[in-house]
Amino acid sequence: MALKRLGYPAPRIGYDRPEVLRRALSAGAVDGAGEDLPSAVRDADLVILATPVGAILDLLDHLKPHVSPQALVTDVGSTKRVICRRAIEALGDGPLFLGGHPLAGKENSGFERADPAIFENVCYALTPPSPELMGDARVRAFVGLVESLGARPYVTDASSHDLAVAYLSHVPQLLSSGLASLIADEITDQNLPLELAGSGFRDLTRLAESPYGLWRDICLTNIENIQAGLEALIEKLEGIKSHLSDRELEKIFVQARTLRDRLREQK
Amino acid sequence: MALKRLGYPAPRIGYDRPEVLRRALSAGAVDGAGEDLPSAVRDADLVILATPVGAILDLLDHLKPHVSPQALVTDVGSTKRVICRRAIEALGDGPLFLGGHPLAGKENSGFERADPAIFENVCYALTPPSPELMGDARVRAFVGLVESLGARPYVTDASSHDLAVAYLSHVPQLLSSGLASLIADEITDQNLPLELAGSGFRDLTRLAESPYGLWRDICLTNIENIQAGLEALIEKLEGIKSHLSDRELEKIFVQARTLRDRLREQK
Repeated sequence: MALKRLGYPAPRIGYDRPEVLRRALSAGAVDGAGEDLPSAVRDADLVILATPVGAILDLLDHLKPHVSPQALVTDVGSTKRVICRRAIEALGDGPLFLGGHPLAGKENSGFERADPAIFENVCYALTPPSPELMGDARVRAFVGLVESLGARPYVTDASSHDLAVAYLSHVPQLLSSGLASLIADEITDQNLPLELAGSGFRDLTRLAESPYGLWRDICLTNIENIQAGLEALIEKLEGIKSHLSDRELEKIFVQARTLRDRLREQK
Repeated sequence: MALKRLGYPAPRIGYDRPEVLRRALSAGAVDGAGEDLPSAVRDADLVILATPVGAILDLLDHLKPHVSPQALVTDVGSTKRVICRRAIEALGDGPLFLGGHPLAGKENSGFERADPAIFENVCYALTPPSPELMGDARVRAFVGLVESLGARPYVTDASSHDLAVAYLSHVPQLLSSGLASLIADEITDQNLPLELAGSGFRDLTRLAESPYGLWRDICLTNIENIQAGLEALIEKLEGIKSHLSDRELEKIFVQARTLRDRLREQK
């Protein structure tokens, strides 16, 4: 839908479950629908895999015989190391693969929630198999497309990406779901009155509406980094717990506010 | 300012640092200014203590000789047990005390950020020293005032209040500051690129802008509950860490989404 709004010149062919394809066609999100994977990708210059991570891995295994070696294949999965490795194995000397991850997640999903402005002013991580591939004409064209959608391309390698998003996205998600789950426990165990929840609690648990299916694949494909991130967070919370009544807590608050200032400058 | 918008009939007298009082007077947030504490409260029917918790405790110690025994004294502090105990000791057979806590916190403070709509549709916890005091005419009038500001009064005892807000407000605050502090550590230690922070991370760390001064007092006056809450959260995160690749994680996600549904129904 963002491409439509942009006036993207080439026909956009969709492939999904029939009922989703029907809605996408009638909303003009795609110009045509593929009957099956081979016919959907046969004439494509650019193939964008936009499913949960596990389904991206499956799709990669079936693409090569059907996609032109002149095409660029990219994805929007939240982890990159496993996907990029599989892409190299599965595509080999076939089409070029460029890992992609627009940091534009929402807590809800489905075609009804599609937002053509979702890419505006967000970071779009790109993980080429090797840095020199950023010079390939297809990759340069795709970077231009990302920019024209209003996103900021950020080139990195798949391992650095996965480490960073473990701390900046995956641990925060698990924290949000964990906090909501803890409160559900306490309502049962201690009769905690949910009436006393304020806007801070609502903000912190908003991510907890995100569906498990998406996060199962993310956890499975980034487990070591997420475990390290959770461990570091647990240590931080232990530290806070032992310093609730001394000035060490002030240092943490000051450090946290400084980070928020940096975050604001960045936007 | 909410009382002004409501057309509150009695004069509102403010007492604060001179520069704050000047701004409050010129904005019409107060009708008059007390030169000192005694003159500010001398003719009051209703005294509202709206400072950080530590300053509320100090003020309570100095009020009795100056406030009419017919008056109602209330506060807006985030913890209630220590405040209510101190009020009973300090006011004795003087004015009636009713603990109050509007769950309308923001991450920023100061007169410039004052919002006359801040009480709309929020819960306003009230902790009377004993339940029968809710029948007192002054308390009933104050409950009516809270309702006319658009807030929902929620009567409870100070201990239950403090336990609930430890889990619903204080632990989430420390979590938000702790997460932001952890990311600041990782930027230094592992060169983590903050560019990859998305909207989820921004939401989860918004509370981290809240000033330490406010939270120091809250932690000092609710330390056992906060420690228990942090301990329970750490246990929850340990559980998540050991179940990243099995279906136990799904149970946590489902429980968390169900809690979010309850939260949405409540509003």
